[in-house]
Amino acid sequence: MGYIQLNYRPDDKDVVCDFYLEPGRGLTVKKAAEHVAAESSIGTWTDVSTMSPRIMRMSAKVFSIKGNNIKIAYPEELFERGNVPQIMSSVGGNVFGMKPVKNLRLNDIMFTKGLVRSFPGPHHGIGGIRKMLKVRRRPLLGTIVKPKLGLMEKQHARVAYDAWVGGLDIVKDDENLSSMRFNDFDKRVRETLKLRDRAEHETGEKKIYMPNITAETNEMIRRARLVKESGGEYIMVDILTLGWAALQTVRESNKDLKMVIHGHRAGHAALDRNPRHGISMMVIARLSRMIGMDQLHVGTASIGKMVQEDPVRGLEDALTCDWHGLKKTFPVASGGLHPGMIPELVKKMGSDIIAQFGGGCHGHPGGTRKGAAAIRQAADATVRGIDLKDYAKTNYELGEALRMWGR
Amino acid sequence: MGYIQLNYRPDDKDVVCDFYLEPGRGLTVKKAAEHVAAESSIGTWTDVSTMSPRIMRMSAKVFSIKGNNIKIAYPEELFERGNVPQIMSSVGGNVFGMKPVKNLRLNDIMFTKGLVRSFPGPHHGIGGIRKMLKVRRRPLLGTIVKPKLGLMEKQHARVAYDAWVGGLDIVKDDENLSSMRFNDFDKRVRETLKLRDRAEHETGEKKIYMPNITAETNEMIRRARLVKESGGEYIMVDILTLGWAALQTVRESNKDLKMVIHGHRAGHAALDRNPRHGISMMVIARLSRMIGMDQLHVGTASIGKMVQEDPVRGLEDALTCDWHGLKKTFPVASGGLHPGMIPELVKKMGSDIIAQFGGGCHGHPGGTRKGAAAIRQAADATVRGIDLKDYAKTNYELGEALRMWGR
Repeated sequence: MGYIQLNYRPDDKDVVCDFYLEPGRGLTVKKAAEHVAAESSIGTWTDVSTMSPRIMRMSAKVFSIKGNNIKIAYPEELFERGNVPQIMSSVGGNVFGMKPVKNLRLNDIMFTKGLVRSFPGPHHGIGGIRKMLKVRRRPLLGTIVKPKLGLMEKQHARVAYDAWVGGLDIVKDDENLSSMRFNDFDKRVRETLKLRDRAEHETGEKKIYMPNITAETNEMIRRARLVKESGGEYIMVDILTLGWAALQTVRESNKDLKMVIHGHRAGHAALDRNPRHGISMMVIARLSRMIGMDQLHVGTASIGKMVQEDPVRGLEDALTCDWHGLKKTFPVASGGLHPGMIPELVKKMGSDIIAQFGGGCHGHPGGTRKGAAAIRQAADATVRGIDLKDYAKTNYELGEALRMWGR
Repeated sequence: MGYIQLNYRPDDKDVVCDFYLEPGRGLTVKKAAEHVAAESSIGTWTDVSTMSPRIMRMSAKVFSIKGNNIKIAYPEELFERGNVPQIMSSVGGNVFGMKPVKNLRLNDIMFTKGLVRSFPGPHHGIGGIRKMLKVRRRPLLGTIVKPKLGLMEKQHARVAYDAWVGGLDIVKDDENLSSMRFNDFDKRVRETLKLRDRAEHETGEKKIYMPNITAETNEMIRRARLVKESGGEYIMVDILTLGWAALQTVRESNKDLKMVIHGHRAGHAALDRNPRHGISMMVIARLSRMIGMDQLHVGTASIGKMVQEDPVRGLEDALTCDWHGLKKTFPVASGGLHPGMIPELVKKMGSDIIAQFGGGCHGHPGGTRKGAAAIRQAADATVRGIDLKDYAKTNYELGEALRMWGR
């Protein structure tokens, strides 16, 4: 018995966590791992009079130690079904601050079927979204309205309109735009959806607006309803700064509203950037799919302005693999992208992605509309296997983008 | 103009953030700071056609650079009042993952009066809690029921009863105990509050039970109501694993329920342990007080099983300073404490604290009740300025604790 059981083989009632662990001063990895298994399950720093053999059988078990990488099996009864905060308080809580560890990173969690199925997963998923947009093969293309903050409601709507008629499918708010003095949420949504209707009429294509509803829970649900009532099909949330409990509540309310939910990961790198400490994007991705994000930012494979700590293909697999019947979450690439990067992006991430461009759209020398056109041209060329430089000969906007930002 | 304005002096309409910053390859601190100020306010990686002079005036300004420490002033209109997720998406979001920084830590935020007053703060605060418990001078004393998980409802209630009659004021659930197969939340609350009534009757003292309501938001509010209806006055939440949006919602619902809210910080060390990257406990403490935590875990000044990254006296000041009329949040010390540590704890943190003991209570050789007695004796001795060893001569339970764990 005890927390170290190297001969133990986890079964389908065990939740398995992979940690990277550097022990505290004077401890071996094995000894530190024992402390982690205790603190994240049923133990504490000293023996207690209230322990019993029945409870000891519920202990977590360290069953693999390879260098600094350890695997711990947890009986699933240690976790409450349908309660992500409780799960994270157990395996992503006190353990990071304990003296027995110097650094600790929760790299992955393998959940049991019972736990996975206690969550709803995405309502629409990749299949539903592609059907809604009637775009079967190419990456979906979007922009983030820029500047991040500052535009007034009608200006915001106008930028969105230009992007849609230029050729993009999706327009999203920035992660720090919610309801501001200079840009009221309700008014922005109404103005922007009005111009979406016009863009759809003019282009004959389905166009999407993703307003950022991030706020206190009840206000967030109110904003989601307003979007629905105003004719929107999408909402966007900052999954980490609003937090797991409210994220589950947004998904609950969506059983009525049936919106597509777009998850932005602002703040993830405070947790996942350090490869030796914190919580990986893989864990965040799995939880997000379980809770029910239809779309999730996973990075750009280090193309662009952001660092990619956790390998993007692994994240895409987590979002799209067979998983006890849950629908697939659409991987979103965003962060410093421009048209010339699309071939490399598709090579690294495949074409079943949503690619989003902020500065790489509105920074085009011809403005937002031409920037949008350049992005669409680059995506069309990539899917058809045509070199961007060749395609740019007859596609002027793409040519301008390539001259400005390279490829 | 621009994002670097070293002659700028922030005024009372500016939110000021202190960051520790290590620049990415080939960049100076100044250049990297410019990227941080842009990304966390109105800019992106390239110039955009949609920018205007009016919007440029809303830019964040780096006004101090000292080694790797920078200060940035943000016009308060960049933040939505009463919306912590939006604030964190701005200054605690994308910036951590940008290539221009190698490491970045948000060390502190100074909010404007307008932003602070857009939040309610604690309902009871230190004053209200001391009045409720009728304990004026000494630290409040509590325990966490151990083992963390595994006890059934009646066993849990019995351990709580023993702790109360032994001499403790407060019994709390552990951070990973919510509603489990072996321990149903509703039943646990009813059983435990029943024995609380008995303990109050037998001791003539006010006794507190803090059940952990952490869950999806609506379920959490349901649990809070159940506690209220069952005669409880306190609820406990895992502030970080449930997240900012739902935490605000719990406080909103508390305008009716008027409970004391206890904030557990499980998971903070994933964010704050690394002194070079992430988000400090100081920031978490300020946000928690604004939102309205009556009590908050701040650490044990490195006494005990947990590391103390951010200085505990600074955290206590943040929770108790004059702050635009908000009530004071009670600092809670918890994590590997035992009775022999109380004099040092009070020396380092003062006596206006709540001290909590898990293993240091239930690990007493005489069991929970004697462990509780030892803690009370140690606190009484400390407040009266009596050396623990002397006091132990006539206080047998304390003597046993000192022999077991030292001092």
